[in-house]
Amino acid sequence: MLLQLSTWPEVETYLQESTGIIIPIGSTEQHGPIGLIGTDAICAEVIAKGVGESTSAMVSPTLNVGMALHHTAFPGTISLRPSTLIQVVLDYITCLAKSGFTHFFFINGHGGNIATLKAAFSETYNHLAHLNIPGHEEIKCQVANWFMCRSVYQLAKELYGNQEGSHATPSEVAVTQFAYPNMIKTAALNPEVASGFPIYGAVNFRRHYPDGRMGSNPALATPEHGQQFYDLAVKELSNSYLEFIGKKQE
Amino acid sequence: MLLQLSTWPEVETYLQESTGIIIPIGSTEQHGPIGLIGTDAICAEVIAKGVGESTSAMVSPTLNVGMALHHTAFPGTISLRPSTLIQVVLDYITCLAKSGFTHFFFINGHGGNIATLKAAFSETYNHLAHLNIPGHEEIKCQVANWFMCRSVYQLAKELYGNQEGSHATPSEVAVTQFAYPNMIKTAALNPEVASGFPIYGAVNFRRHYPDGRMGSNPALATPEHGQQFYDLAVKELSNSYLEFIGKKQE
Amino acid sequence: MLLQLSTWPEVETYLQESTGIIIPIGSTEQHGPIGLIGTDAICAEVIAKGVGESTSAMVSPTLNVGMALHHTAFPGTISLRPSTLIQVVLDYITCLAKSGFTHFFFINGHGGNIATLKAAFSETYNHLAHLNIPGHEEIKCQVANWFMCRSVYQLAKELYGNQEGSHATPSEVAVTQFAYPNMIKTAALNPEVASGFPIYGAVNFRRHYPDGRMGSNPALATPEHGQQFYDLAVKELSNSYLEFIGKKQE
Amino acid sequence: MLLQLSTWPEVETYLQESTGIIIPIGSTEQHGPIGLIGTDAICAEVIAKGVGESTSAMVSPTLNVGMALHHTAFPGTISLRPSTLIQVVLDYITCLAKSGFTHFFFINGHGGNIATLKAAFSETYNHLAHLNIPGHEEIKCQVANWFMCRSVYQLAKELYGNQEGSHATPSEVAVTQFAYPNMIKTAALNPEVASGFPIYGAVNFRRHYPDGRMGSNPALATPEHGQQFYDLAVKELSNSYLEFIGKKQE
Amino acid sequence: MLLQLSTWPEVETYLQESTGIIIPIGSTEQHGPIGLIGTDAICAEVIAKGVGESTSAMVSPTLNVGMALHHTAFPGTISLRPSTLIQVVLDYITCLAKSGFTHFFFINGHGGNIATLKAAFSETYNHLAHLNIPGHEEIKCQVANWFMCRSVYQLAKELYGNQEGSHATPSEVAVTQFAYPNMIKTAALNPEVASGFPIYGAVNFRRHYPDGRMGSNPALATPEHGQQFYDLAVKELSNSYLEFIGKKQE
Amino acid sequence: MLLQLSTWPEVETYLQESTGIIIPIGSTEQHGPIGLIGTDAICAEVIAKGVGESTSAMVSPTLNVGMALHHTAFPGTISLRPSTLIQVVLDYITCLAKSGFTHFFFINGHGGNIATLKAAFSETYNHLAHLNIPGHEEIKCQVANWFMCRSVYQLAKELYGNQEGSHATPSEVAVTQFAYPNMIKTAALNPEVASGFPIYGAVNFRRHYPDGRMGSNPALATPEHGQQFYDLAVKELSNSYLEFIGKKQE
Repeated sequence: MLLQLSTWPEVETYLQESTGIIIPIGSTEQHGPIGLIGTDAICAEVIAKGVGESTSAMVSPTLNVGMALHHTAFPGTISLRPSTLIQVVLDYITCLAKSGFTHFFFINGHGGNIATLKAAFSETYNHLAHLNIPGHEEIKCQVANWFMCRSVYQLAKELYGNQEGSHATPSEVAVTQFAYPNMIKTAALNPEVASGFPIYGAVNFRRHYPDGRMGSNPALATPEHGQQFYDLAVKELSNSYLEFIGKKQE
Repeated sequence: MLLQLSTWPEVETYLQESTGIIIPIGSTEQHGPIGLIGTDAICAEVIAKGVGESTSAMVSPTLNVGMALHHTAFPGTISLRPSTLIQVVLDYITCLAKSGFTHFFFINGHGGNIATLKAAFSETYNHLAHLNIPGHEEIKCQVANWFMCRSVYQLAKELYGNQEGSHATPSEVAVTQFAYPNMIKTAALNPEVASGFPIYGAVNFRRHYPDGRMGSNPALATPEHGQQFYDLAVKELSNSYLEFIGKKQE
Repeated sequence: MLLQLSTWPEVETYLQESTGIIIPIGSTEQHGPIGLIGTDAICAEVIAKGVGESTSAMVSPTLNVGMALHHTAFPGTISLRPSTLIQVVLDYITCLAKSGFTHFFFINGHGGNIATLKAAFSETYNHLAHLNIPGHEEIKCQVANWFMCRSVYQLAKELYGNQEGSHATPSEVAVTQFAYPNMIKTAALNPEVASGFPIYGAVNFRRHYPDGRMGSNPALATPEHGQQFYDLAVKELSNSYLEFIGKKQE
Repeated sequence: MLLQLSTWPEVETYLQESTGIIIPIGSTEQHGPIGLIGTDAICAEVIAKGVGESTSAMVSPTLNVGMALHHTAFPGTISLRPSTLIQVVLDYITCLAKSGFTHFFFINGHGGNIATLKAAFSETYNHLAHLNIPGHEEIKCQVANWFMCRSVYQLAKELYGNQEGSHATPSEVAVTQFAYPNMIKTAALNPEVASGFPIYGAVNFRRHYPDGRMGSNPALATPEHGQQFYDLAVKELSNSYLEFIGKKQE
Repeated sequence: MLLQLSTWPEVETYLQESTGIIIPIGSTEQHGPIGLIGTDAICAEVIAKGVGESTSAMVSPTLNVGMALHHTAFPGTISLRPSTLIQVVLDYITCLAKSGFTHFFFINGHGGNIATLKAAFSETYNHLAHLNIPGHEEIKCQVANWFMCRSVYQLAKELYGNQEGSHATPSEVAVTQFAYPNMIKTAALNPEVASGFPIYGAVNFRRHYPDGRMGSNPALATPEHGQQFYDLAVKELSNSYLEFIGKKQE
Repeated sequence: MLLQLSTWPEVETYLQESTGIIIPIGSTEQHGPIGLIGTDAICAEVIAKGVGESTSAMVSPTLNVGMALHHTAFPGTISLRPSTLIQVVLDYITCLAKSGFTHFFFINGHGGNIATLKAAFSETYNHLAHLNIPGHEEIKCQVANWFMCRSVYQLAKELYGNQEGSHATPSEVAVTQFAYPNMIKTAALNPEVASGFPIYGAVNFRRHYPDGRMGSNPALATPEHGQQFYDLAVKELSNSYLEFIGKKQE
């Protein structure tokens, strides 16, 4: 059930059954020579919709832009500053908490969002306590990274081994190919791909990772792999969501 | 050309031809008993894509959540505070300006966004001047409201007369029906609809507009109307965009 | 009744009769070769005092500095950033709301303030709701632009036609001449005056509007015109104010 | 020379002679049963104008509202939060520094402003250094409190002794009577006036100072005293200003 | 070499040899019935000093208060909000970067700081790039959690098994006992200790963890264990630091 | 009683006896050729501990870094911006006020902190009133500068006369020598020491005060002097603290 495709009376009805909501969050950032700039948002959105369907959960619009400052030396990247993203998340949760939602399950497609999301949750719990919103102590937030699902991780290892890498990975590219089979990009990839450099500022990042990939070979991705990753992530995250909102999981 | 479905080298190539970008911005807010909560974002996004296709312009991901604080007494509404939205817009433009974009054309689906967007543009011009980004004095932003296109306005008047109203209007609902023909909602609408009250805070708003509509009869909407509005808006905004970036318009 | 010339017990007495207040807001910005830098603040202040007298309303001190970032490439301009002005307006209203005021009528002398004022109102309604100030849902703010009064607009058109322009206009200069007849400035004005360029950043503005005027011929202004504008604006805004606070208008 | 009554070319001319500017700052706060709410702004403004005349200095519009949170339990008080006032002062100085002003002389009418002004100066020096405004290291700010002028202090002691007190003082009330002889207020003053309590929050303040006075007897004020205070303050602050901008003082 | 016990010429000399600095960061938060409120700061500080000695690195004063909002339902806890801590870290690094430092090694004693620290680093890299501080692209920050050192973790497991828990752990208590042998506290500890609840807001935390411990038995701690942990952490982090600043490690 | 060396149940017990707390605040800034960078924090901390012992008051961890932006042109200085320090102080007091503390006695070692601290107190009183923390109107903050104690001032004058100066003074250096007798630094000091220049920005400061001293001769300091200053400050501030929390002083 997508929030954006619902009416407010439908939301009112939903809230009588459940006060949980799924919020997909991605990023709009370079993903190497053949990865889509929207990769992280696309993956988060498609998987969140799948989880919403399988659990009858409400799914909010996707936060398309996250914390990707370290990618901003590549054209097309858009990032919020962490201080901005904290306020955005606080605003989302505050509005929805006033509506009656209590359990916020962020399905996340970008590792760079995790730290700021966790900071935002802390900031928000404190904010809501100060507002004296009734029942504020029941508010719970969780970040669930689809790419860190055990089953997803195992499949990626099995299919790609070391070539999975850590950014512009074949697994995430595969999910975008499954979602947008007409948008599969190709390019000659340098077989020597940079890896192992820690992440600091944007200029430093591009210097070390000149084509944007971090140790990955996204040319290995296929739409069929994408569907496999999708199925695994939806299943695992559906269980996580049900556990999070206190319902028995299968 | 959608930014999220492009790669960074494709963006680099695009920037050699054009430094303009279209940014759809909507809202996630109640739209009365049968209007979708995502109405404003859906309209902005679908029309922006149309404009992007007809002008070969880059289109960024949609800002799904805007400034809708006055609707937050209805469940399901999500709003940024104006101070947050200003920082979000500033972050978007700053990142894209560093990429080389100079002309930012916001296709907007929500009247409540206009004031904050204009404030954000001023804040951003000043910010970029202080950063001494090369060529910052060429940065230009414009907000283009599809629902205020002359041709759109005339058709709405012709089709609906006074029943167009000013929120949860049949014209915007029609566009969403065109975009999502399977999500057409129905409900018994009170023929007496509130209208004419100025907008203040959220509690006050709901007291005066108990079902969320402002003077409108969205039951008049049809997907066929939606296509007509879409065609008119795309045509008119495409011309506006071309004029904005300094190309001759048809 | 001017707040700054009242004592607190007088304010306490006033609040038993009325909870409305008029807040003049202007700007401190270049107004072309012969317009005063304080034009917008002077006009707002003098008209607000007139409205206060005719309606027995309390009038606060004038916000002399507003949102004029686009004029800052001309010496003498002072502007708040929109994010600052939002906090200023929020602070004003919060303090006065705690005093018991509920209706805030901003008489505005500067078009560039409108967007930020509206954003500030939204931010403030939300802020006050969170503070749980008793009766916060009765708080109402309105911006009333003297230069957009129908009668003012008609007189300007009648007196100046196209030479009214849109910045450093003869009508606003006339009001300042009426208010400060000893401060009438003269200079040789280029008969060719720039007009029609949209407003972006400060450097861009000065490049297109080299002497600061936007399509206007302020040399047409006279103090007598100023009095006429003053009379019309006071009459029209007095009615607006009375309507705003719920009293019958003449 | 008042900035608001000047044109931008006049400011340009002024800057060739001097880069100093006087900024009056007051407060809009309760001043006991017979003191005007605008007392601090009125005193700062009238004295600043006098200093401007005697030194040919540019004088900016008055900051009418300052830091008076501790007075907000009395109706009619308007205060900025310190964090807001810091941004306001930073915006003023940044704009004027870009115009070419380098020496900012704040003539202050309210003790409660001093701490925040000093904090704002530090914040601003640092901000301007980061902006790399040419010549930022020449930017200098000073706060000059008219009521702390040695000659003023001595006259107050001589005229009123202990009844000068520390808020709603006869000396400041006298200056407002000099400036606005038609607005002299009277009321029965309790001869027992509270004094000696430190200042904490607003509720606490009103509890200890029930009529708003702090140890003062403003009934002693006369317009003639006001003129004397005015003359002394203008003379002493004119010397301070000339010394500040590096001109020989008389 | 402790920054606070150095003179500025000594810092100048140091910078000719090295541009690295160690910044200890802890927390001031409840640590159960017998753990010191300063546990995390004490551990970070003592270990940072040890690392500073063994590597000849400069060590800054300890950030005693971190992000511990979830502990604020217990008396004595002090926490910064994440948004505040981000600004604090940004200020620290900006000042030190202007001095010439480039490598910032945060030795951290509190898991709750990690997310906000990482967000702060991203915010700061971006901030410094905008300031155009020369060599800003060489600025590097790293968070090193002493309690996550492999050797520390192994010893804790060996000594305490499951009774190590995850807050108010015997390992961290042991380090404080080693640092302050005269401040060893005792109390009757409930052998049933809560564990396994995720961390949300402060009220929720205290409800689930009534005495503040998370699955730990701090009564197992001894000063001798503390010394062992100290030795292991200093050794392992010294190597990490040397690697971070680009020197060969032993 | 040091907060960091207490457990939360000990704090709970303390709060039944007293709701006062001492918060030492210093600075991390250059103190001339032989003064320690941590001088202000060291002095505040050691004296605060003394006051805590003599009055049985709780003492919080030291705020090591304060407002020292004007010293940032010397290497090793770390400063918060005033806007950051305000938020830090607000966070400290908010947390402790929720614990039940009501009287906040800041023992301060740095003149540059005073303005921002006072601004922070005002901001915080207002913030707490808005949060409706029970008993918020009892919250009281005070800044007590050890170096402005009458007895301290007199001894400094007696021992050093004009050579006390106003920064990197022999009196504060003496206290650090008393606290850290092994860290006494020596260097050839220019007998001509700058003095009398007002404080503006950092570059300006260093230009006028090339070795960092302001009119002082710290070579006069001895550890024995330090102990005398310590004893005097502890005695005087202990009385001030007891008076502040409403206990009879000796």
